[in-house]
Amino acid sequence: MSDSNSPLDQLSLLGELIIGSIEERRYPTLEIPVRNTENIVFDQKAGHFILGDVKTIRDSSNTKHVKSFMHLTWVASFVKQLLESGRTSSLRDLYYSSEAFGVKFKDQSESDRIVSDLESLIGYPRESFGVFSEEHSSIYGEAVMRYTVAGYSGREVNLTISPDGLPIGPALVSAEPVSTKARFILAVESGGMFSRLIETRCWERYSCILVHLGGQAPRTTRRLLRRFHDDLNLPVVIFTDGDPWGMHIAQVIVAGSANAAHLDGLAIPDAKWIGVTADDITDYDLPTEPMTDRDLRRLDELARDTRYMSDDWQHRIKAFKALRRKAEQQAFSRFGMDFVVDEYLSKKLAD
Amino acid sequence: MSDSNSPLDQLSLLGELIIGSIEERRYPTLEIPVRNTENIVFDQKAGHFILGDVKTIRDSSNTKHVKSFMHLTWVASFVKQLLESGRTSSLRDLYYSSEAFGVKFKDQSESDRIVSDLESLIGYPRESFGVFSEEHSSIYGEAVMRYTVAGYSGREVNLTISPDGLPIGPALVSAEPVSTKARFILAVESGGMFSRLIETRCWERYSCILVHLGGQAPRTTRRLLRRFHDDLNLPVVIFTDGDPWGMHIAQVIVAGSANAAHLDGLAIPDAKWIGVTADDITDYDLPTEPMTDRDLRRLDELARDTRYMSDDWQHRIKAFKALRRKAEQQAFSRFGMDFVVDEYLSKKLAD
Repeated sequence: MSDSNSPLDQLSLLGELIIGSIEERRYPTLEIPVRNTENIVFDQKAGHFILGDVKTIRDSSNTKHVKSFMHLTWVASFVKQLLESGRTSSLRDLYYSSEAFGVKFKDQSESDRIVSDLESLIGYPRESFGVFSEEHSSIYGEAVMRYTVAGYSGREVNLTISPDGLPIGPALVSAEPVSTKARFILAVESGGMFSRLIETRCWERYSCILVHLGGQAPRTTRRLLRRFHDDLNLPVVIFTDGDPWGMHIAQVIVAGSANAAHLDGLAIPDAKWIGVTADDITDYDLPTEPMTDRDLRRLDELARDTRYMSDDWQHRIKAFKALRRKAEQQAFSRFGMDFVVDEYLSKKLAD
Repeated sequence: MSDSNSPLDQLSLLGELIIGSIEERRYPTLEIPVRNTENIVFDQKAGHFILGDVKTIRDSSNTKHVKSFMHLTWVASFVKQLLESGRTSSLRDLYYSSEAFGVKFKDQSESDRIVSDLESLIGYPRESFGVFSEEHSSIYGEAVMRYTVAGYSGREVNLTISPDGLPIGPALVSAEPVSTKARFILAVESGGMFSRLIETRCWERYSCILVHLGGQAPRTTRRLLRRFHDDLNLPVVIFTDGDPWGMHIAQVIVAGSANAAHLDGLAIPDAKWIGVTADDITDYDLPTEPMTDRDLRRLDELARDTRYMSDDWQHRIKAFKALRRKAEQQAFSRFGMDFVVDEYLSKKLAD
């Protein structure tokens, strides 16, 4: 189901397939790519996770399948209505909306799973059919986007319009990048650092677009980063806390996550993590905390993770294991409020 | 220290006081209002918490006081620099910045406490001297604000500029409300509901400004609500999940919290909580979850809380205790995506 060119087309095709079967007096069946760990492969060449070829048949004549088959067709019809009316829905709202149709899900994790089934079946991410999670990220910088949502269609916005940044929500994610003066994207973990870089005019000085990740980047944010990367040719640079969690925030942007292996258009294999590395902590003599057992176990997990097989990543992990300490991005404030921009980023970005 | 008219003036006065003492060869002392529970009073007439008259002397000649005295003067000098350079800082950044000056705090909770000391000493909230926490809330609606931050000073923004809403950050909080077409403010707990109300043009239909609280409203958001309420004469209406936690999100906007009792300009005693009430859950036959022991214990706490002494609040608590079930705002989706606007809010706002 991948010849057509929009989620709406794919949903119509899906409907025709099901109705066609029924009209021919056959029980409709669907072939859905399997998303369990055995069918998730890390594509070393592409640099991100992909699904293998294993598919499962969901057969409406099988009493064990009939409920999830019904769930899937309901989700498909619900999101088709979203698309046709130009609306969006949170995953939570989709779950509650099912009751209006007499459809029962055990809990939200069940409806979330069906949404993922639909994604892998039609080959489009849920954001493309108007379904979002409730996560926060924001963006700031010299770039113009053109909205496509109802009421704003065709209206252009410069991402410097609000000095507090703009939220990366449904409207911004579906907007078209028009133009930019920026030369790269600088994605940062914490809101404090994001505000600091706006105020110190880091975006102007280094000609970059600033993105606030707010912990693990929401999928919408990764998608937006990827679109800037592809459509406007902007390299992506990631700046996180210096600990295994910060490192992995960067890695998921670089190489994707297993639970989104069925989706294209998220990984950015040439995105770069600049730090805070263990070497930075030593070189700049940053204030640190000792790593907890949980931090150290996480380092061991990462060392075995297929995404960390390169020499660079293994070196970074080893350096943290030797240091056994961690530091936040904000730790640079010990040298004054402008040090991180004037010295650290200046040096790191030159490299 | 409350005759002067800006945080900067107050900080200068504080500095003069300290230097004056030193020049007279006396150890400087400061009188700080006590913020512990014994000195926090609920002013039933005003409808919010205030501090009592008890003050403590911080005496720099007392070796037990000298460290916190030094901490306080450092924080005062740090935020004076923030104000003079038009910068802001997160509480976290302030904590790390201390190291640049050879000042040591045990941990961030210690520096946070000193910031509160300074607030109660000079009678201004930390937001007024550029110190923010990293919290998220957003706003959307027909209102024009004029920015005062560097680089944006005098520039006006309509709060409908971004269809995803605008973050309530340092720049927006320090902006001046200029004009509005709205007749009231509708503050909602969840991001999903906020997006829904933007999309369904609830703001246009009922002429309201929408605010996304994101759980307990950050102080910046409460301050902004209060300014719209005072400067533009807009009533505030609050719509949360139907459980003790949602009820208390509303109550803190109405009557304030004990830990901000030293600050004016936050409580909005005539703000109204519209629901989801226990009666709504019954009347609309909403999908519910059973209350947990924690929920029930929380109801008992609220029943004894001085802010809940009115008959209305006691009735609401009793109704939840009888029902022993709770419901989210999103539960209205069981009647279709527009029900909450077309029916529920329509009826509640008419009341």
